[in-house]
Amino acid sequence: MNLESAPQGVVAGSIPLFAGHPARELLPIDGLRRVMSAAWEGSDAARMLNYGDEQGNRQLIEFLAARLRRRERLDISRDNLMIIGGSTGGVGMLTQHLTVPGDVVLVDAPSYRDALHIFRDHQLELRAAPIDDEGIVIDELERILQQLAASGVAPRFYYVVPNFQNPTGITLSRERREAVIALSRAYGFAIIEDDVYSDIRFGGALPASFFALARGQNVFRLGSFSKTLAPGLRVGWLVAEARRIAGFVGSGMLRMGGGANPFSAAVVADYCGSGAWEAHVEWLRGQYQKRRDLALAALKASMPAGVTWTRPQGGYFIWLRLPSSVHADELEARAQEGNVYFASGKGFYIHPAAGAHHLRLSFSYVPLPDLQAGIDALGRLIAQLMA
Amino acid sequence: MNLESAPQGVVAGSIPLFAGHPARELLPIDGLRRVMSAAWEGSDAARMLNYGDEQGNRQLIEFLAARLRRRERLDISRDNLMIIGGSTGGVGMLTQHLTVPGDVVLVDAPSYRDALHIFRDHQLELRAAPIDDEGIVIDELERILQQLAASGVAPRFYYVVPNFQNPTGITLSRERREAVIALSRAYGFAIIEDDVYSDIRFGGALPASFFALARGQNVFRLGSFSKTLAPGLRVGWLVAEARRIAGFVGSGMLRMGGGANPFSAAVVADYCGSGAWEAHVEWLRGQYQKRRDLALAALKASMPAGVTWTRPQGGYFIWLRLPSSVHADELEARAQEGNVYFASGKGFYIHPAAGAHHLRLSFSYVPLPDLQAGIDALGRLIAQLMA
Repeated sequence: MNLESAPQGVVAGSIPLFAGHPARELLPIDGLRRVMSAAWEGSDAARMLNYGDEQGNRQLIEFLAARLRRRERLDISRDNLMIIGGSTGGVGMLTQHLTVPGDVVLVDAPSYRDALHIFRDHQLELRAAPIDDEGIVIDELERILQQLAASGVAPRFYYVVPNFQNPTGITLSRERREAVIALSRAYGFAIIEDDVYSDIRFGGALPASFFALARGQNVFRLGSFSKTLAPGLRVGWLVAEARRIAGFVGSGMLRMGGGANPFSAAVVADYCGSGAWEAHVEWLRGQYQKRRDLALAALKASMPAGVTWTRPQGGYFIWLRLPSSVHADELEARAQEGNVYFASGKGFYIHPAAGAHHLRLSFSYVPLPDLQAGIDALGRLIAQLMA
Repeated sequence: MNLESAPQGVVAGSIPLFAGHPARELLPIDGLRRVMSAAWEGSDAARMLNYGDEQGNRQLIEFLAARLRRRERLDISRDNLMIIGGSTGGVGMLTQHLTVPGDVVLVDAPSYRDALHIFRDHQLELRAAPIDDEGIVIDELERILQQLAASGVAPRFYYVVPNFQNPTGITLSRERREAVIALSRAYGFAIIEDDVYSDIRFGGALPASFFALARGQNVFRLGSFSKTLAPGLRVGWLVAEARRIAGFVGSGMLRMGGGANPFSAAVVADYCGSGAWEAHVEWLRGQYQKRRDLALAALKASMPAGVTWTRPQGGYFIWLRLPSSVHADELEARAQEGNVYFASGKGFYIHPAAGAHHLRLSFSYVPLPDLQAGIDALGRLIAQLMA
């Protein structure tokens, strides 16, 4: 069972702190219902139920392009965008298009687990550089690149969740982004930025995207409505150079036979077009911030000395480091006895042992009292294991 | 532009006889609206908007498994099924999973154009055997297999639309299916049966599926709600051996991050669960049969001697063969001047020249008077070109 995507599979009454889902009350059910009712009454129903363009819903593409022009002053048009069936599907699509088995790709240590899974199943060779509070450590990345170059190997791309990373919540600094771009040009690799959390931002500005800093060159930027609207709609987008988008749209390899989810995408387009999405995102930020605040306060109150954790400024996740005397596996076994579940650190590393003393907590999904109770329970168990 | 999937891209007032879409009036808009309203009112809205299982909507899987057990006496359980985002996406998924660049796959001549496109973009080597009124010619297939074997090459799979094939409307006979299965065992290739038209059947029984005849062994059977409900929902299914389904569900390569279209799939599950789908399919059969009858009558009345065509017992398409003096390209250019569009035969063959005198007409999409007028116009133009 894929726990990440199926919290309903967990024992009833449990506290699934692993679940990177939006909580039920954060889904705009009424707003989506209104939009959909209007669509059924209008003339659009037949169109949204039929095949669409391979590039995806045009109204939604125009909306997203205008939003990026307005908010980030990006020089892009609808030719730089396509609609996809969610960003994880987008990672698979890009991997399929950009690599052949045996190719090398670069990732963070730790990195998004499902992406590692996708890369492994494409029989890619993974190289990971560690991250610190500003994201990937450039010297380590460069050392890997030099080693590869010495063997005549050019990596195909660097995959990163640049903002409020899954699993750590860390945001890659602007300086590091620019350094990565310089390396990408020197060594000839592409950059896939999986930017699904940037709208869940609790304050401050984010660094410019790779796509903005590199003026689009050899950058593939993924976005999604899964975190800010509803995952079940399976609607995301890809921003890339126009020639790349045209290539994808015309490619049989990526062809979905009528575009990504015409029906869901039409609903999302109408929801966005009404202005409801921006208002919902604004509201969501406050809701997730409240959850983050509660989680951080609970950690501070309940964790014994020696446990450290990240303080994310957005997104869904907090990353804990346990003292070297406490193994995440052991903690996991104990926690499950008390019906508390978290994502053990191992799965986020190429070399699982690197995550033996780490764990990821999600503050996005469980009810607030459970968030408090779950973290309290973990604090007690860690203290017991340290004793 | 992808004409196949974007008839809205064609000049207003045109007659798009290429369009393999359901006509607007054949989409059950009211029924889907009722189901969706009920879902919004019930407790399911939050679940259908969140991440789902990687295998797909459980209710829909159970419904489809029960239907196959009941109608085809297949010995299958929910472990043999997964929900996918439409059958063309399923072809891509299977291709990705079963092949590496350079592998050989077997197809019909002619074959479904988008599938050829997918296989080419995966850098596969295509080998095609011709079809006659009973489908693939076994001797020709065997000759290809012997040639490949002599070079030490084992093809990975045979791809076929077994029922009411796209583009010809031809159904592969039971005898030939059994012969293909025998060859697949002798030469070690899998069978992908892309079975999206079997429910659009105008009379008579269909031969048992490859999946049934081979007892599932090494067969991948794709189905879809695109032809019998609404393409825009992007919901299809895959039937395969349980170990294969488990492999796909657990595979990062195919992972979509929460299952195929939880929202649309939940709507489809409710629609099917209410009994509405079976009733709709029954009604659709009559509607498409009326369209097929009109098209065949129009062809009989307007085509000059020397033009021949298939008489499909189901599906969407009729396949025309022009006299050797008339080129489909020339006809296409003339027809477009009169705003009549069809799918030229070339795109359905590995070697385009093989389709120089063929064309595909779809009777699924255009209004009935346009179907008549379009075929009449083609008849006149062909007569002119023959003169």
